[in-house]
Amino acid sequence: MTRTVVESQTKTVTIGFDEPFCVIGERINPTGRKKLAAELEAGDFSTVERDALEQVACGAMVLDINAGVVYNSNPNPNETEPPLMTAVIELVQGLVDVPLCIDSSVPAALEAGLAAAKGRPLLNSVTGEEDRLELVLPLVKKYNVPVVAISNDDTGISEDPDVRFEVARKIVQRAADFGIPAHDIVVDPLVMPVGAMGSAGQQVFTLVRKLREELGVNTTCGASNISFGLPNRHGINAAFLPMAIGAGMTSAIMNPVRPVEMEAIRAANFLMNHDPNGSEWIRFARVLEATREGTPFAEASQASQAASGGRGGRRRRRA
Amino acid sequence: MTRTVVESQTKTVTIGFDEPFCVIGERINPTGRKKLAAELEAGDFSTVERDALEQVACGAMVLDINAGVVYNSNPNPNETEPPLMTAVIELVQGLVDVPLCIDSSVPAALEAGLAAAKGRPLLNSVTGEEDRLELVLPLVKKYNVPVVAISNDDTGISEDPDVRFEVARKIVQRAADFGIPAHDIVVDPLVMPVGAMGSAGQQVFTLVRKLREELGVNTTCGASNISFGLPNRHGINAAFLPMAIGAGMTSAIMNPVRPVEMEAIRAANFLMNHDPNGSEWIRFARVLEATREGTPFAEASQASQAASGGRGGRRRRRA
Repeated sequence: MTRTVVESQTKTVTIGFDEPFCVIGERINPTGRKKLAAELEAGDFSTVERDALEQVACGAMVLDINAGVVYNSNPNPNETEPPLMTAVIELVQGLVDVPLCIDSSVPAALEAGLAAAKGRPLLNSVTGEEDRLELVLPLVKKYNVPVVAISNDDTGISEDPDVRFEVARKIVQRAADFGIPAHDIVVDPLVMPVGAMGSAGQQVFTLVRKLREELGVNTTCGASNISFGLPNRHGINAAFLPMAIGAGMTSAIMNPVRPVEMEAIRAANFLMNHDPNGSEWIRFARVLEATREGTPFAEASQASQAASGGRGGRRRRRA
Repeated sequence: MTRTVVESQTKTVTIGFDEPFCVIGERINPTGRKKLAAELEAGDFSTVERDALEQVACGAMVLDINAGVVYNSNPNPNETEPPLMTAVIELVQGLVDVPLCIDSSVPAALEAGLAAAKGRPLLNSVTGEEDRLELVLPLVKKYNVPVVAISNDDTGISEDPDVRFEVARKIVQRAADFGIPAHDIVVDPLVMPVGAMGSAGQQVFTLVRKLREELGVNTTCGASNISFGLPNRHGINAAFLPMAIGAGMTSAIMNPVRPVEMEAIRAANFLMNHDPNGSEWIRFARVLEATREGTPFAEASQASQAASGGRGGRRRRRA
């Protein structure tokens, strides 16, 4: 049974075929968020704090940390990203106790993140590109952490799912050469927008089944990509996620501060028999009821979490 | 490729692995609707008229017709149900042009329905019970219609999905003895409430895959059963339907006048590559937008249908 173990200092999250779907919160990421990038440049971490607390309250089990800023004062991410990664990780670890996912394309930022993160973070990511394999897999081995493997290589992203499967297989084999087991590889089969490619959904469902059956690996994806460019996107996402979960997908990097998507995931967990007695569903139904009465989703989630004794991962203040 | 062909006088609906999911509207059914039963006893068919028009406007591709009343004036359904079945079918056929599904446990009502329905209706239903097989299969053969096969038998409804599969296999074999092909059998694997049985969802997904791969049959279900007794039922239904569709379910008997479930089905159709260019999704997104602005779903659906030239199945009045 494939189990990918991710840990903070105090909390263990297992990504696996017999576990509830692992929601990895994507919001701590300045890419495409100019306001956030400017705040970080000015030393203002209030948005990061809010994003950490809200995402965990809403059900994120792991938080992705990306510090990919381009400062006005210094456009070189090799200089700016590693210290910012360290600072953000230290801040987030002081606020919440969920495991982290260290997300960067800058090698020094990955290593800074690995040094700063307590426990056993997830590394995001390696691809099938030769230089990336040579650079990231030694880090994975050295720190003994699991890694997200994205199924593109030096030829780019193939529209052919069989090619993407072979890239995933290559990464798993190369990892094995480093002594990294398949259960520490979480493959992202790459989700294309269904509006541009009608077979995009079926590609993912087929690939996820095959990755699971033939390579025995856990899987993840950037879920919202499926609905790119379409009206009423959340409706597409809310059908895609249960279908992907039914096909065997075990995690996604996504925005958990969205009730529609989180409702779909919690219902799918229940339907996969990963919510004993439906107790999580029943608790969540009360949160939704509060949102219908006007309470914002994050606030209603925080109140529900507080009522159940703070189980959701907010770090308790010391007395 | 399994194709179950259902027809009205003028319209063909194909239930199949490569077709959009077939929504069979369940509302024309006085069982558990005392007010409707009393209206029908008084000769008032206005609710039936509204249910027919609204369901088709909202996306029903087939309408289930059940006339299972128990009148105060006559408690014998063998006497009351057959003439009422005829009357309701004649009324509905005059209003809408979608194919019908003739639904009764009274043999004479099934036969009255078969005599009254134009085209090639779906018969609902046969079970694995011996007397039912002996009674319904000859009707299926005589009228050359497809039939819903419910996977219970003389021992009742088994909680063991393997037993339910064997009942389905038996029905398919018995039908073959009558010269009825497997593509004219639409199996209902029986959906249990997930609140009472945690494995209920997975049972359905596994059974649907197996029924499709091993018996080559189309499938249907009473979808809302999955969420019986739970809070926020529509959220469970809206995850269950895409998961069932992903597993290979090809139709459901359900209430189409519910935007949450219909949104899930239309998104799933798109993700199964059964909505070329997403044109149905884009049209439906406009209907949802109108509902958010306060228009009732049935009304917004009717307006959208009228705007697209009445494609949805309302019969045009003669000039």
